Amino acid sequence: MALQGNAIVAQSGGPTAVINNSVCGVVEEWFRQNTGFAIYGGISGIKGILQGEIIDLSKQPQGMIAGLRYTPGAGIYSCRHKVTQDEQIQLVELFKKLNIRYFFYNGGNDSMDTAHKTYLAAKDAGWEMSVIGVPKTVDNDLPFTDHCPGYGSAAKYLATTVRETGIDLESVSTKNKVTILEAMGRNAGWLTAASALAKRRPDEAPHLIYLPEVAFSKEQFLADVEAVYKRLGYVYVVVSEGIVDKNGSYCFAGGEIDAFGHAQLSGVGEALKTLIEQNMGIKARCNTLGTAQRSAMHCASLCDANEAYQVGKVAVTYALSGKTGVMVTIDRVANDPYQSKTGEVPLEKVANVEKKIPLEWINAEHNYVTDDFIQYARPLIMGEVTLPYVDGLPDYVHLDLSLGKVRK
Amino acid sequence: MALQGNAIVAQSGGPTAVINNSVCGVVEEWFRQNTGFAIYGGISGIKGILQGEIIDLSKQPQGMIAGLRYTPGAGIYSCRHKVTQDEQIQLVELFKKLNIRYFFYNGGNDSMDTAHKTYLAAKDAGWEMSVIGVPKTVDNDLPFTDHCPGYGSAAKYLATTVRETGIDLESVSTKNKVTILEAMGRNAGWLTAASALAKRRPDEAPHLIYLPEVAFSKEQFLADVEAVYKRLGYVYVVVSEGIVDKNGSYCFAGGEIDAFGHAQLSGVGEALKTLIEQNMGIKARCNTLGTAQRSAMHCASLCDANEAYQVGKVAVTYALSGKTGVMVTIDRVANDPYQSKTGEVPLEKVANVEKKIPLEWINAEHNYVTDDFIQYARPLIMGEVTLPYVDGLPDYVHLDLSLGKVRK
Repeated sequence: MALQGNAIVAQSGGPTAVINNSVCGVVEEWFRQNTGFAIYGGISGIKGILQGEIIDLSKQPQGMIAGLRYTPGAGIYSCRHKVTQDEQIQLVELFKKLNIRYFFYNGGNDSMDTAHKTYLAAKDAGWEMSVIGVPKTVDNDLPFTDHCPGYGSAAKYLATTVRETGIDLESVSTKNKVTILEAMGRNAGWLTAASALAKRRPDEAPHLIYLPEVAFSKEQFLADVEAVYKRLGYVYVVVSEGIVDKNGSYCFAGGEIDAFGHAQLSGVGEALKTLIEQNMGIKARCNTLGTAQRSAMHCASLCDANEAYQVGKVAVTYALSGKTGVMVTIDRVANDPYQSKTGEVPLEKVANVEKKIPLEWINAEHNYVTDDFIQYARPLIMGEVTLPYVDGLPDYVHLDLSLGKVRK
Repeated sequence: MALQGNAIVAQSGGPTAVINNSVCGVVEEWFRQNTGFAIYGGISGIKGILQGEIIDLSKQPQGMIAGLRYTPGAGIYSCRHKVTQDEQIQLVELFKKLNIRYFFYNGGNDSMDTAHKTYLAAKDAGWEMSVIGVPKTVDNDLPFTDHCPGYGSAAKYLATTVRETGIDLESVSTKNKVTILEAMGRNAGWLTAASALAKRRPDEAPHLIYLPEVAFSKEQFLADVEAVYKRLGYVYVVVSEGIVDKNGSYCFAGGEIDAFGHAQLSGVGEALKTLIEQNMGIKARCNTLGTAQRSAMHCASLCDANEAYQVGKVAVTYALSGKTGVMVTIDRVANDPYQSKTGEVPLEKVANVEKKIPLEWINAEHNYVTDDFIQYARPLIMGEVTLPYVDGLPDYVHLDLSLGKVRK
């Protein structure tokens, strides 16, 4: 028999275009299961929960929860916070007080670490509960899952942008001969690599792709750019913000460190632009899409949105069937036509592990991806999400987080 | 009676998402009029025409010309080239040789200057012909027209991005408290200002907008950011790449000069990010959409696409009715519901004149726009363009520019 108690769902880390699909899946499935208990929202992830920022999601106005299916950002807000041991104990105390028996944490690597620690803390305290990780990350670097919800949409937006700005570059006879696009992805090049989906004809953009999985050499980079420039007269480069040199050090780290001790990266594209201009005497331009990559719901993948919703729903059915300490995974069943199903992996195995692009999917010259990668990534960007538009812009919802406050 | 001869259409300057709608309008209207003469495409604008890069557009495969209605970039390629007096004479000689009696030039301020000079050169040479300017620019800075084709789509894409990345900023509790978006627009802030369309609720992004029409002060900027930060805990800033100080000098010019003697700008957003981080001790992030702003057909305005097509069609009917030396304009007839009609203005009055945002549409604090601007801009972003998708990406056409070469 399922545990008798309330549930809480919260979001953590950088949002994706479809992260709210997962929360919507959790909430709608919880309501459908009709347990007789409440589903709470923890505002701003673990950080807000610890401060008692908890609301009853059944109190939202009509249409708000359903609207999460086409709304980017973190609908119930998110945080970047490394939970301490004291906080873990505090958290379980709070769960006891509110009779919370189900915890759904929607996030990436760091968030799965938090979920895992919470699972252990509850166990230590003898508080019987189910902790389920609901994956999301545009970085696509969670292990034991074929891919991560959020990745397909970011990949579709990036590839669309490369396709459009690539046509722009090719079609103007001007001094700006090189376009550099700096893509997100700290240590894994999945998103950067997805730019290759933009190429349909042999000489279309992108021409060169640089990933953090292999060592970057400035000399080789300049030689690569020169070769394409000689052949076509223009060059489209996509580079990951996290490229490293042969010693494994970030090529262009800003020196700042985030809450989890990760280096904050920026400026790689601008640095390469300067490198080209100073060494080759031609002009370059750098586009840095930044947070647009993780929030462009107007260009989201339908496949991705549906899977993000599905992992949310499945998290609830897993929890109610007695599972705990696991993250929901997506397993690829077939590629053509594409088909997937959900699975599970212990949080313990996922926490803080980063999955990188297999080296055999990167070409010998270390400046492009192979066709195997294309076959892997293409199904994930398929289909378009239909958005409601008002006054020419997407009509996103905004939950009223002041409604249904839960007292500690 | 209309002049007996061929027509040529060419594109110039930076593309827009909908610039090809205008070429499509010219070509389709020319075919519809059934003059018995050819319509040529001048490849890479005036620069290519001078080198004899001219093709007969009737030789394109089925569907290519129609496909221009949803394809970004410059379909017949574009250039940035300041035409010399010798070249003007050379151009008219070429027109005589090929019996070209109609010249449609699709571009912005500089291109209208080129069209005007060509008009004068033909007159001087006694070559009777019609020269019609077909407006385009994401900068929206052509005078004597209510607005410019290309602007509405760039505005829609920018406002959509601000809406999405604004939700992202608001929804994550992290150290990155300020998002800066650097927008295109050398001397006129129309595109930057359009970001205000993103705001629906009072405290939504954007919070601060900085335009080149008014002097920028670093001290005031920091005070503005501080005030919003104190109130909300996060700040969304949109800044034009061309902001100037109180002496009228670009605040952050790179020092490079383009073919028309205009300063090449970049790095404003990054410079402001550094300014904030060094003075306020909080972290900022800079998104620079770059050429995506002028090529994002996947997020184009239907109103804009239709008007771009219409000015192309009208250019042909104007030319065949004997008009010459004019640019087609768009006149606003009504605002609610929005209605426009086409008009004309002598090229002489347009060449090299930049229309800026009226100062009364900028607030007293010089950090936002007034509601009058919103009323002006909103109709221009209305409606969505339906694109064909293949394998998850827009299926843009690519003209075969090797077909139908015209011999000098």
